[in-house]
Amino acid sequence: MSTKPSAQLIWDHCEELALCSEQTTALTRIFLSREQAAASQMVLRWMREAGMQARIDAIGNVVGRYEGDAPGLPCLMLGSHLDTVRDAGKYDGPLGVISAIECVRVLNAAARRLPFAIEVVGFSDEEGVRFGATLLGSRAIAGTFDPAALETRDRSGMSMREALDNAGFDADAIGTAARSSEEILAYAELHIEQGPVLEAEGLALGTVTAINGFSRRRFSVKGFAGHAGTVPMRLRQDALTAAAECVLAVERIGRGDPLLVATVGRIEALPGAINVIPGEARFTLDVRAPRDALRERAVAAIAAEVTRLCTARGLGVQMEVLQDNPVAASASWMMAQMDAAIAAEGLPPYRLPSGAGHDGMAVAAIAPIVMLFVRCEKGISHNPAERVTLADVDVGARVLLRFIENFKRPA
Amino acid sequence: MSTKPSAQLIWDHCEELALCSEQTTALTRIFLSREQAAASQMVLRWMREAGMQARIDAIGNVVGRYEGDAPGLPCLMLGSHLDTVRDAGKYDGPLGVISAIECVRVLNAAARRLPFAIEVVGFSDEEGVRFGATLLGSRAIAGTFDPAALETRDRSGMSMREALDNAGFDADAIGTAARSSEEILAYAELHIEQGPVLEAEGLALGTVTAINGFSRRRFSVKGFAGHAGTVPMRLRQDALTAAAECVLAVERIGRGDPLLVATVGRIEALPGAINVIPGEARFTLDVRAPRDALRERAVAAIAAEVTRLCTARGLGVQMEVLQDNPVAASASWMMAQMDAAIAAEGLPPYRLPSGAGHDGMAVAAIAPIVMLFVRCEKGISHNPAERVTLADVDVGARVLLRFIENFKRPA
Repeated sequence: MSTKPSAQLIWDHCEELALCSEQTTALTRIFLSREQAAASQMVLRWMREAGMQARIDAIGNVVGRYEGDAPGLPCLMLGSHLDTVRDAGKYDGPLGVISAIECVRVLNAAARRLPFAIEVVGFSDEEGVRFGATLLGSRAIAGTFDPAALETRDRSGMSMREALDNAGFDADAIGTAARSSEEILAYAELHIEQGPVLEAEGLALGTVTAINGFSRRRFSVKGFAGHAGTVPMRLRQDALTAAAECVLAVERIGRGDPLLVATVGRIEALPGAINVIPGEARFTLDVRAPRDALRERAVAAIAAEVTRLCTARGLGVQMEVLQDNPVAASASWMMAQMDAAIAAEGLPPYRLPSGAGHDGMAVAAIAPIVMLFVRCEKGISHNPAERVTLADVDVGARVLLRFIENFKRPA
Repeated sequence: MSTKPSAQLIWDHCEELALCSEQTTALTRIFLSREQAAASQMVLRWMREAGMQARIDAIGNVVGRYEGDAPGLPCLMLGSHLDTVRDAGKYDGPLGVISAIECVRVLNAAARRLPFAIEVVGFSDEEGVRFGATLLGSRAIAGTFDPAALETRDRSGMSMREALDNAGFDADAIGTAARSSEEILAYAELHIEQGPVLEAEGLALGTVTAINGFSRRRFSVKGFAGHAGTVPMRLRQDALTAAAECVLAVERIGRGDPLLVATVGRIEALPGAINVIPGEARFTLDVRAPRDALRERAVAAIAAEVTRLCTARGLGVQMEVLQDNPVAASASWMMAQMDAAIAAEGLPPYRLPSGAGHDGMAVAAIAPIVMLFVRCEKGISHNPAERVTLADVDVGARVLLRFIENFKRPA
């Protein structure tokens, strides 16, 4: 019986999971979709085959449990997310879930029990594509899910409450997904880096020091719709031309500090016909930084500039706060144990921050966290060109297994 | 038996037709939709009640025929369109169809036959909301429908061919909708002005001298998608920020001549998630002018500027030509007969160009055309705030009836 994780099996399962997609030509798997339900069933099966008790919780997280050397012990929680962005890569999320399951499979095959339980979670929503708010799955587990989110609506106008109901869940039962800090010793997540740092350093793996904070907003510029042929340019109140100035202001302010990033990822002109002057324009904002004060200053500057630009054109604008997440730091003792696992596999330990948000931001509310980053080709992620190598998958799983085997929460 | 059209009946039918809408809270009735099918049935019934033979042709136009004093005579064609923009007004299109039916109803009630037939057409697509290309109904009647349009796709990815099939039509039979110039003596259309000129002049009605030419394009800017948290601003190839510069360039060039208008009515960032740098941005362009050379120069300047802006950011851009329509002039003898009808109702004749496109642009290929504009409150159209007065509807229908009664094509 092999005592090493199978990189090929992890690879094959990443491929298989990627078939659960909205399109056949691209990977899109959003919260509470049919394809997510299919993915959850697949992960449930893999968890059970790996020797875990597995279930789907009240918000759609897939939760597998491998008991320790006595039943009912507190757990080391591992995991990542099963949802994707639109036209996504195959590894962002699934690689962490599948690698963790593979580690448990190896332990189970060797009939090894540890002095703690292991739980592997496939979170149901990290990306927040459908309802704008992210980390819905991990927030539910952390007990910080905001019930106000139930009334937010997706593009088709369906509320989260309705979407849960449609998918066979009960919005009023989400509280039952919450876990206590007594049940969870710590949380560790393997994830593709989604940035260019490890590749530039020539390293397969790195220990994450902290997850950058982020702020999200939604803006709506209100102009006046009219016929594109009959309203002279000087009499127009075109909401989209104002929004275009705002998009460029976001870019300009984002460029103001090398540690800052600011992105408009969605835009829409309404009513949205080729021959109608847009009466309304909506766009989103995502701002991130490794220091909370830097992020907060940038968001305030963008909000002020958007208001100034729209006012100068005689238009109204509304801003909706979607999310504000502070920087989430890794526990120093967990970083030390992760570094030791990397070193034990013969690689140099290396530490880096995470520019992307991760489920650990939410889980940090009830447990110490750490992350292990796996090298990402050219730093490309949230894109079908996202790539890892089989060799990096292999060493990633081996380090994760070693981390698990040697895990010990300090007294 | 009244020999005058009933303005109240026209008004009521405009209200009734507005109930055929995609939403209950707004008016949207696009080509080949279920609500358009419902509207067509309603118009068929009104035509038959007015004494016409009525049918739906191969592209969904509703065509009613009122024979002249002998069967099979060439016709005076009247009409307008039954489709709408999104979140439309109630009069843009339907007022012309319903007023024409009402004129026929009055003639039929008085058992009056004229030395020519009358046909009333409710065109199935003028606005072009669904497939980008406009005037589909009137082009089919003019025999200038471009079969290449059958392969264009709507937002949901459905091709026009599939949409026709779904709605019970046969794409390969569209040629049978074409009419010959021998069958049609002339085409006259009553339409809401959709601009502020008649109101400013204190006039209820005006004779249209020409329909402005228009050009439509679709642009696609190609950047590179990436994670909004991990790609530094300086390494981004954000397609949306480039597109925002293009939108402002369209506005700037459109402002270059008071007779010119240029509009971006639709924009989309792909993949379209809050936390993904847009890898592609698509937007539309609509340019109009009363002189073809002015329009053509503006379109060329915009295309050059879009290319320059995208190239400066290292991005690619593609431009798709959707439509180019030259200025369509009214026949001078028809304008004279329309002026005479206006004068006979005691109003001062007044002539103005049309900033908006109309079905007459297409029908002009097989028949001389003229239009009668009805005053529009504040010039607001393509907007639910579009308004006419009952008094203007009344005088509009009376002038149209008088025009019909006295119509004579010069030898």
